[in-house]
Amino acid sequence: MPYGDPAGIGPEILLKALRKVTLGDSIGLLVVGDALLFEKVSRDLMIESKFDAVVADDAALAKAMAANRANILYAQNVLDMNQFEYGVVDAMCGKAAYESVALAHRLVSEGYAKAIVTPPLHKGSLKAAHINHIGYTEILADLSKVNNAVTMFDTMGLKIFFHSRHLSLRQACDAVTKDSLLSTILVCDKITKQHPHIFDGHLSLAVAALNPHAGDNGLFGNEEILSIEPAIEEAQSLGVDVVGPIGADSVFYQARIGKYRAVISLYHDQGHIAAKTYDFDRTISVTWNLPYLRTSVDHGTAFDIAGKNLANEQAMVRALSFACDSVNRLMRVER
Amino acid sequence: MPYGDPAGIGPEILLKALRKVTLGDSIGLLVVGDALLFEKVSRDLMIESKFDAVVADDAALAKAMAANRANILYAQNVLDMNQFEYGVVDAMCGKAAYESVALAHRLVSEGYAKAIVTPPLHKGSLKAAHINHIGYTEILADLSKVNNAVTMFDTMGLKIFFHSRHLSLRQACDAVTKDSLLSTILVCDKITKQHPHIFDGHLSLAVAALNPHAGDNGLFGNEEILSIEPAIEEAQSLGVDVVGPIGADSVFYQARIGKYRAVISLYHDQGHIAAKTYDFDRTISVTWNLPYLRTSVDHGTAFDIAGKNLANEQAMVRALSFACDSVNRLMRVER
Repeated sequence: MPYGDPAGIGPEILLKALRKVTLGDSIGLLVVGDALLFEKVSRDLMIESKFDAVVADDAALAKAMAANRANILYAQNVLDMNQFEYGVVDAMCGKAAYESVALAHRLVSEGYAKAIVTPPLHKGSLKAAHINHIGYTEILADLSKVNNAVTMFDTMGLKIFFHSRHLSLRQACDAVTKDSLLSTILVCDKITKQHPHIFDGHLSLAVAALNPHAGDNGLFGNEEILSIEPAIEEAQSLGVDVVGPIGADSVFYQARIGKYRAVISLYHDQGHIAAKTYDFDRTISVTWNLPYLRTSVDHGTAFDIAGKNLANEQAMVRALSFACDSVNRLMRVER
Repeated sequence: MPYGDPAGIGPEILLKALRKVTLGDSIGLLVVGDALLFEKVSRDLMIESKFDAVVADDAALAKAMAANRANILYAQNVLDMNQFEYGVVDAMCGKAAYESVALAHRLVSEGYAKAIVTPPLHKGSLKAAHINHIGYTEILADLSKVNNAVTMFDTMGLKIFFHSRHLSLRQACDAVTKDSLLSTILVCDKITKQHPHIFDGHLSLAVAALNPHAGDNGLFGNEEILSIEPAIEEAQSLGVDVVGPIGADSVFYQARIGKYRAVISLYHDQGHIAAKTYDFDRTISVTWNLPYLRTSVDHGTAFDIAGKNLANEQAMVRALSFACDSVNRLMRVER
């Protein structure tokens, strides 16, 4: 785990989550970040630090892992603590956050860990440090040389994929074409089939409608008729178990109560409103198609409450638990 | 209460709700519908009918009310029960549903009741009966000669107004203009101030954003900059306590936990997704600016499960409770 933007709530929720998350017997947590920062957060906020080994190079890491240390801190040394301040945009912190995720990526790639779990970054601090990515998905896709990373939300079992995300609502309407939606359906179906321990393959994938009441036979918008239904029908003819378009006011609730494998949301807010109104504090983000599993909180760095022991670690606990659970199941399958 | 479309789940959830709802001492329920239909539903579904008086004209109604009957059925005689079938579109049922709401409207207008609570209509059956309205709001507005009826959702305290509803998503984007939004803000503010027993006037009204991350300073859409912010600023300059635009993925959750008086949703699904993903079965609709309070379930007639004793009456119980509670408070104020 990288530690996110050190000036935000990342290190705090990470320390809090370490005390709460239940690991499998054969699983450990490896955190990457400045040791002095964790000392400060632990001291300022009176949160006991649960690291049972602190290492500074790969050899020491290998030794600690061989000794079955459960919570290992791989200490980087980027921050000048005399310059450090909670809750501010700072190039030094942007650099430290980037270095920690790059190191985490290297360690996973070299087999020291099996998944990456991320606390929040601050894009302003990244920008101040001349890092031209807006977040982890872009950083990790770049480091992994992957161009098809896929974001999914999980809120207490409600799983939501996104056909588009960072577009205006009008552009998101334009982005609903038959071909692009067919491609999204096929990609999401493939991901869900590759992870049977996470998705119930007996259930259909559901596509949300774009317009109210799924357009009501063209009365309120024709995207359903022109693009969405044809994309779903073509996917069905290719053997995909997918249904829709289903009115957005019911599809997420139905998925929440277990009727669908996952929902494909057609625009950013459609899925975000569903997930976060349902349970803001326990919505996590999962990135697929990287060479490893990556889970993340989906909230921000919350600079306004950083360093005040006010941050809620529930999403961090869920992101960690989701990753640990997946790694555990995969390890059982591999054995 | 009218009984909704008799072929749908309306009469069933009405009978079920009558057994569950707790009334104030000085409050009674007046149901309008075919007595033979209620007998059939009660018999077929083995739901005890809790009517303690059945009347067929105003004089008998006045007598039953004077005798403090709590649950009165005002029997109309529209249905031919030999022709009746559960779960089908039927002109006879559309006519019966319309007659029952028209009679309910007359009874409230003449002082026999103080609010109208409605089970679902079927617009296909209305159309088959040559009734050219799509739902209660239009029927009651027409009967009341009102042209400014306003719909609000309430889901366990989360209150959502709608800037627009039955438009395509693209048309809903077009409908977000500074002047029209200012008008919506002023209307909603006025309603909330007229009902201090329902809305906490110490809290701000919140306007949801249209684009993801409220457009992120114009990066994903410029409606926030061009229309929404100017409308909010002008409303503020007129003394309205209103804030926004707030990202739609957080504003509904924040309102849910008590931070805002109500949220103004900018399009149909924005508010619908929030309310119904949060609690589909307990979302009710409230219509303001009629001469009386009207509450309603927001689900449909569910023809597929009509007559099978499978319908969930929670929304009906909430719609009834909301209305009873409001009427009770108003009566206390009037005394």
